[in-house]
Amino acid sequence: MKQTGMGSEKIIRRKRDGELEYQPDDLTVEEPLEIRIGRKVLATTMRTPGHDQELATGFLISEAILRQPNELAKLSSPGENIVIVDLAAGVKVKLNSARRFGTISSSCGICGKASIDVIRQNFPPIQSTGSRIGLTTLLGLPIRLREQQMEFAHTGGIHAAGIFDLRGRPLIVREDIGRHNAVDKAIGRAFLDRRLPLDRHVLLVSGRASFEILQKALAAGISIVAAVSAPSTLAVSFARVSNQTLIGFLRPPSFNLYSHIERVDLSRS
Amino acid sequence: MKQTGMGSEKIIRRKRDGELEYQPDDLTVEEPLEIRIGRKVLATTMRTPGHDQELATGFLISEAILRQPNELAKLSSPGENIVIVDLAAGVKVKLNSARRFGTISSSCGICGKASIDVIRQNFPPIQSTGSRIGLTTLLGLPIRLREQQMEFAHTGGIHAAGIFDLRGRPLIVREDIGRHNAVDKAIGRAFLDRRLPLDRHVLLVSGRASFEILQKALAAGISIVAAVSAPSTLAVSFARVSNQTLIGFLRPPSFNLYSHIERVDLSRS
Repeated sequence: MKQTGMGSEKIIRRKRDGELEYQPDDLTVEEPLEIRIGRKVLATTMRTPGHDQELATGFLISEAILRQPNELAKLSSPGENIVIVDLAAGVKVKLNSARRFGTISSSCGICGKASIDVIRQNFPPIQSTGSRIGLTTLLGLPIRLREQQMEFAHTGGIHAAGIFDLRGRPLIVREDIGRHNAVDKAIGRAFLDRRLPLDRHVLLVSGRASFEILQKALAAGISIVAAVSAPSTLAVSFARVSNQTLIGFLRPPSFNLYSHIERVDLSRS
Repeated sequence: MKQTGMGSEKIIRRKRDGELEYQPDDLTVEEPLEIRIGRKVLATTMRTPGHDQELATGFLISEAILRQPNELAKLSSPGENIVIVDLAAGVKVKLNSARRFGTISSSCGICGKASIDVIRQNFPPIQSTGSRIGLTTLLGLPIRLREQQMEFAHTGGIHAAGIFDLRGRPLIVREDIGRHNAVDKAIGRAFLDRRLPLDRHVLLVSGRASFEILQKALAAGISIVAAVSAPSTLAVSFARVSNQTLIGFLRPPSFNLYSHIERVDLSRS
């Protein structure tokens, strides 16, 4: 088992000219991580090894189990694919979102609106209104994310999540085979560094923006979320009610703005 | 709430020339689907509405709950985002894989090898050895998948999964915001049509191939799995022990072969 982000395997490659070659190829490592609270297994996620304690921390923040640094007593890794989180005395463990969803019952089972309401019970909308990003800074983020990425160029099989300040300076960049894991790792690191809430920061993800990505950003208090690819309908609805600015298809010089455009200075320089 | 795969939202778009326009944009719909067995909620998945009963069916096949058509008594949709599966009398519901994983304990928590072993307890490796796909047929699959896709060109935010026979004829193509859902929908349809096992068929996914995709393919008895993007290390390990042929980066005229190359006729025509 490897603890690095890449594995090397000998494969057969058919090249563009039709010739075959047999040589090593770099692959993104995927391994399960078991997240425990004390002795109880909370979740198992398939992830790329590395920054596992940050991942576990970010996951608990997204699940609204962990809110303040003083609620976390200890993080430990007794094995390669286990993180044990010990919470401070008195911190209650709520059910995870899948289970929370399961308790809702209405004529639609659970609809998008109900999903949003569940999250909003745990996380209020972004409060601050002062954050603003300039056009040039925004357009510069994708290349800055790429500069910080270690793996993508090699394997083509990894997602990245970066947290930047409003001047475009990278605070944290993390990679993972799962987009949600990359975001959890970045948010977990920021939490451990006591940087939350990140209302004066931007989260950029290398792929698409789903409901879950917006939810995680809100849990960290992030007011601006940008994605290189498409958002979903529910991500847009969520951003609008959560007072989050959502930018999609950020492929300089173009992008789309889906919500709370007031945080982007669209004036041409 | 929409039951189609696309939603339309007015957005601000910054065009390549720097001009701004305000107009509708097509987005992929993301809504939760609650899958129940009888009255019990088994799972909630974020999916693109459409083919929900196929999705629920495919999910239960992947979870090794449903194996034979006669084990399924009834599928019903009492609301837009609920599917109720009634199993035939006597069919046992096992715990889902997350919970199964949770019961394993070793020095690594659960490692990749243990994950593979858990799946193999439920699904034996592919038995047949006769399936073989020709080079020209293989190289033709991505364009055939694209031809069958309805949405991608519009939204850029959806995954596709297609099941093809060994002559490259499409049997089923399904789309979803989640790659695993697209595969579940395709497999669920094939099951309902009593086409399983699909050992003389190819599964092509539009994105990457993770462990989970290979697992679902094995549950349906699919012997050849191809992906337009990268596989993970665990997907490759899984394919090797499951006697599955795994093809990655299928971007004609090139591709990579990761396992069981004997099912691809590499001779140049």
